[in-house]
Amino acid sequence: MVPPLPSPRPHPLNPMHHQLRLHGPRRQLPPRRRRISRHGPLPRRDPRLHSSLRRRLRQHRNPLRSMAWVLDPVAVSASEFRMRACLGLLELRPTVIRGNASEILGLAGAQRIQSSKGADSSHESLDAMDAAKSLALKTGAIVAVSGAVDFITDGSRAVGAHNGVPMMQKITATGCTVTALIAAFVAVVPSNAFEAAACALSIFGLAGELGMDMARGPASLRMHMIDSLYSLNEETVISRVRIASL
Amino acid sequence: MVPPLPSPRPHPLNPMHHQLRLHGPRRQLPPRRRRISRHGPLPRRDPRLHSSLRRRLRQHRNPLRSMAWVLDPVAVSASEFRMRACLGLLELRPTVIRGNASEILGLAGAQRIQSSKGADSSHESLDAMDAAKSLALKTGAIVAVSGAVDFITDGSRAVGAHNGVPMMQKITATGCTVTALIAAFVAVVPSNAFEAAACALSIFGLAGELGMDMARGPASLRMHMIDSLYSLNEETVISRVRIASL
Amino acid sequence: MVPPLPSPRPHPLNPMHHQLRLHGPRRQLPPRRRRISRHGPLPRRDPRLHSSLRRRLRQHRNPLRSMAWVLDPVAVSASEFRMRACLGLLELRPTVIRGNASEILGLAGAQRIQSSKGADSSHESLDAMDAAKSLALKTGAIVAVSGAVDFITDGSRAVGAHNGVPMMQKITATGCTVTALIAAFVAVVPSNAFEAAACALSIFGLAGELGMDMARGPASLRMHMIDSLYSLNEETVISRVRIASL
Repeated sequence: MVPPLPSPRPHPLNPMHHQLRLHGPRRQLPPRRRRISRHGPLPRRDPRLHSSLRRRLRQHRNPLRSMAWVLDPVAVSASEFRMRACLGLLELRPTVIRGNASEILGLAGAQRIQSSKGADSSHESLDAMDAAKSLALKTGAIVAVSGAVDFITDGSRAVGAHNGVPMMQKITATGCTVTALIAAFVAVVPSNAFEAAACALSIFGLAGELGMDMARGPASLRMHMIDSLYSLNEETVISRVRIASL
Repeated sequence: MVPPLPSPRPHPLNPMHHQLRLHGPRRQLPPRRRRISRHGPLPRRDPRLHSSLRRRLRQHRNPLRSMAWVLDPVAVSASEFRMRACLGLLELRPTVIRGNASEILGLAGAQRIQSSKGADSSHESLDAMDAAKSLALKTGAIVAVSGAVDFITDGSRAVGAHNGVPMMQKITATGCTVTALIAAFVAVVPSNAFEAAACALSIFGLAGELGMDMARGPASLRMHMIDSLYSLNEETVISRVRIASL
Repeated sequence: MVPPLPSPRPHPLNPMHHQLRLHGPRRQLPPRRRRISRHGPLPRRDPRLHSSLRRRLRQHRNPLRSMAWVLDPVAVSASEFRMRACLGLLELRPTVIRGNASEILGLAGAQRIQSSKGADSSHESLDAMDAAKSLALKTGAIVAVSGAVDFITDGSRAVGAHNGVPMMQKITATGCTVTALIAAFVAVVPSNAFEAAACALSIFGLAGELGMDMARGPASLRMHMIDSLYSLNEETVISRVRIASL
């Protein structure tokens, strides 16, 4: 059985955003919280910031501010450029931030982690719980941390998504894939991004479990996992998804 | 049985092209038809046009004009840049143009389609029949439209390639793959590009049918389809390829 | 049984390199040999040379000079730009150079091969033996040539790695993959790069042999080969790896 999720908080439509021209599903914005004042806004003329990103930041009626979207801060701690770009994107208020423990720790502290090993995590996912909650409170985003145990937090609540198999972490780009799946789920119910992200992480893990029954290694797991994701039915999802409060 | 194809029209060698230095299989050019006068030539100094493309357009003895090559107008309707680049490439007289229905409709009308969804078609393939014939007549190219039913036209004749399975459309880059296969087939018999394109589309669809016998979803279909393409023999091709006049 | 490898020559630590700041496993440099004087140094201001590469070449305390790394001169003969870039990288003293016969012949002669067919070899691997030995002597690198028979040379010794199946050459990027595997092996024992490269090539070929038992074509071979690489155990490696002096 799927354990009942904590009931979602109401997200009143923010009147500030009523006049925006929309290019995607309307985002039900949570009440604004404290901005990332600790780091200050991005310098506007920083030459290292990609010009199209800078242009978007300048736009008052920024479409990203009114759409549901997911930020995946890949290897954010690996370079100054990546950190700066991700901090700029945080200003555009992502609906969900999905990263591994190292990425969330790095982004929450706005610090490069010296021992950073490219895009792979060097931390256990639950080590990032405090950082994830703090990042969620600062940015208003749902923060999803994937790892041996996936968890999702909005700053106050936190649930764990317990499906999955260890070999999934041996497949390049599983993180990117689950980010894309979260985006698909959130696009369906942007006002319940917390639940959508938790379901996406669990169902992706479930596809990994089903694929593992047929796999002989990471390459066949990758194939069987995609096949399983395609073939999932409601009964399997309801009986096998495991989401629980942390 | 493979239905007999309409016999190919004679393609007299165009004396205009005898002096060209060739870098590939000599293309048997059909008699020149009306140029794409409706759109006019590309402005030469358009800053948005890639400089290497502009340089090629200026070359009088352009090798692309004398070689067999295939244009795949990926998501041509999705941006002004893509449309402009594809119209410029049309000037270089592709031997074959391969696209989905939305791409061929967009390219034939030289118009952006507002409902364009990236690289995926939002039209049925046969909706594009008139546009495909008109595009073939305007450009002198064979036009191949892939979809639930693939068809190939040179402006007067049209044949359907009826092999294939619906799940092939769930695999990213099947369109690009069949374009590459058409190029391989056309390179063998550049003077019979119509027949070559029809055979390539059918045989690719047949590989999909054979792969489907072993597949459990899109990921394993992709693998089994490539394996089947590798293992095809003459007997299977002759007994199972289905090409018919439309 | 693995035939005993010729015992490695001693590689005394080069005192010139003691002061370098290291960012990776310390490379045990062989005594310096003749530099690639035949071609002369790269012109410093060549506009076609990528600026970051030029900057690195200027750095006296270049980290690449003190780390173990592998150069894969992909399609080096296909363009002047590629040749120039690879010759520049040779100045940074790669630990291992891995290419197919055409690439090693091209790089050793610093010449474009006119019949070059992109990244695929148009030569048998053993045709490149003399070129590989000469390249190894000139650059101080171990040179590994992959093909129907893989071989590895340091300029004086040469061993063949006889594992593998022909269908591996039908899989795009097997060359890149084995280069990455060599880099992983060399990172473990940078002072024995010759042995590490030979083992990497053999074990990759062995994974191909094991994968071939289950494969129906190139696409499933690719998958089963990666799975086999993941599942290899010491017993299988010791009983099946075939490395022999040439």
